Amino acid sequence: MIKTISWDRGTVVMIDQKALPHEERYVTCRKYEEVIAAINDMTIRGAPAVGIAAAMGIALGVLNSPEKQMKENFYSICDAFSRTRPTAVNLFWAIDRMKSRFEKEFASTPHIKADTVKKALTEEALYIHEKDIRANRQMGVHGKHLIEDGNTILTHCNAGALATGGYGTALGVIRAAHEEGKKIHVLVDETRPLLQGARLTAWEMKNEGIPATLIIDSMAGSFMKRGMVDLVMVGADRIAANGDVANKIGTYSLAVLARENGIPFYVVAPISTIDHHTRTGNEMPLEERSGEEVLEFHGTQIAPEGFNAHNPSFDVTPKRYITAIITEKGIITAPFGKGIKDLA
Amino acid sequence: MIKTISWDRGTVVMIDQKALPHEERYVTCRKYEEVIAAINDMTIRGAPAVGIAAAMGIALGVLNSPEKQMKENFYSICDAFSRTRPTAVNLFWAIDRMKSRFEKEFASTPHIKADTVKKALTEEALYIHEKDIRANRQMGVHGKHLIEDGNTILTHCNAGALATGGYGTALGVIRAAHEEGKKIHVLVDETRPLLQGARLTAWEMKNEGIPATLIIDSMAGSFMKRGMVDLVMVGADRIAANGDVANKIGTYSLAVLARENGIPFYVVAPISTIDHHTRTGNEMPLEERSGEEVLEFHGTQIAPEGFNAHNPSFDVTPKRYITAIITEKGIITAPFGKGIKDLA
Repeated sequence: MIKTISWDRGTVVMIDQKALPHEERYVTCRKYEEVIAAINDMTIRGAPAVGIAAAMGIALGVLNSPEKQMKENFYSICDAFSRTRPTAVNLFWAIDRMKSRFEKEFASTPHIKADTVKKALTEEALYIHEKDIRANRQMGVHGKHLIEDGNTILTHCNAGALATGGYGTALGVIRAAHEEGKKIHVLVDETRPLLQGARLTAWEMKNEGIPATLIIDSMAGSFMKRGMVDLVMVGADRIAANGDVANKIGTYSLAVLARENGIPFYVVAPISTIDHHTRTGNEMPLEERSGEEVLEFHGTQIAPEGFNAHNPSFDVTPKRYITAIITEKGIITAPFGKGIKDLA
Repeated sequence: MIKTISWDRGTVVMIDQKALPHEERYVTCRKYEEVIAAINDMTIRGAPAVGIAAAMGIALGVLNSPEKQMKENFYSICDAFSRTRPTAVNLFWAIDRMKSRFEKEFASTPHIKADTVKKALTEEALYIHEKDIRANRQMGVHGKHLIEDGNTILTHCNAGALATGGYGTALGVIRAAHEEGKKIHVLVDETRPLLQGARLTAWEMKNEGIPATLIIDSMAGSFMKRGMVDLVMVGADRIAANGDVANKIGTYSLAVLARENGIPFYVVAPISTIDHHTRTGNEMPLEERSGEEVLEFHGTQIAPEGFNAHNPSFDVTPKRYITAIITEKGIITAPFGKGIKDLA
């Protein structure tokens, strides 16, 4: 089992996803600022994993906080984490959970005891982590029936163990089908600019012995047209109340191409990815990262010196292109708004 | 004016497209085998440019051939060029032209004179080159009206001066609109795996002072959906008699996404790209290059050691997604089969 992130005696340990697949290196964060830096520079990434990292980071920050400033520090630490990445809603969900727990502790005692709060927040962060892994397994249980023996599944970016507490969302369902003995093949989109497919999904597939082939993102449509893809399965960074999905840039194109070719398009995500306050995809904040990530490839400058680049990290897939959303509580199909409401 | 390829006193000189955009280096081929190697390793690429290189390479081979073996050598050299790359039909068109000229020379004299043949073949190769540049300019004349002041044009791969004798097909039309003083903006798909967009199209746009921004291939669909693309303009490697188009992998996806978003999708190509013997896109041979191009970048391995990759270089866009095909003889619209026939 891949250890994406863990709490180890008052430190947060995470696998360095920038170093994969060539090196399996672990980073130990002793201060909450180090966890923030790890989220910002993509040492850890993936919507659910970022939420867990924030929860552990907040616990870490409070652990190192003097009793007198604890309350003030807690809120400023939460604010700092909320500024790391704008799109993935699991981050805000995790911060909100930590806030609720913190406030519950305060509410229950007139005189706050530092040790009690620290213990409570550590407990909450670990609970968020465990809950995520359990949720992933449940998505596998619900979703594996959608994959038939002999199927080729196209996936984009990394919605695997590395993007979550462990096991994965889209790759969790693929893992579950594989564990059941189904003969499957995975087409892995390389996922420019940061190559999470080529580096991370390929690494997970290889480790697990799941047959897989790497392709360039722009090949996906052609493979669909040639009848070489049976279904598409991706993760999500935010799901609006109406069922629109924000996910890694390129997801929208895959959804359009899947519909054009009559191929089912599945989104796999925990219910913590659903943002009930965002009505549609049009309201979602979409992160724009540095153009350098586009102008360079793996550290090598590729475009002419001084050239401009756009670098939106996410796009929005309107619900009409989505066949079903697989969550730990069950599978949602159209009309998605109702399904999402019923789940809540 | 970019000198993609030229004939210089019995040698073929070409800009090394592998070294661009960082280095403007020229390669001199003194033997036809060097021209073949340059086509194979993509020192020169782009359907029309490859045709010109083959014509010049054949002339070069015959120039260096002893009189006695000239006929035998001529045909074996033609065969060698025809084995370089399977999809772009301009290569076969150019070889056929050289064959016709060669046979015409033989037919007109009972005793072939080596010098006459050499002169004739050199003339023919230079004529093919000049004809291509003139055709590009004409495509510009016909196509520039499709671009309005203020438009943003999305392009894929490099259909520019570097892909042709000079000036370009899709980029030729863009150049013509720019030369007319229209304020335009070009969105440049980077075009994995070999990054012809990031390296070559970006370089051409920068040299010419045409405002342009680099994007990742999988961003194109999202930019279309967000209303940031007014039209798509690409080149072609082979056009079937019915109007189906083979072009750089990723073109099909762009065409589907353009239609989904109500954006015109234009193909710009000389009539030498039309293959009247291929009825539909289903019959076209599509080159599959080494998976290493996908697994590595600039010599750096990106995927895990020993991973598999697919690497088809081209895909087929069915005619139903194409708004118009712009040739030097005019603009073809649906029904394409009739338009193509009328042109011939």
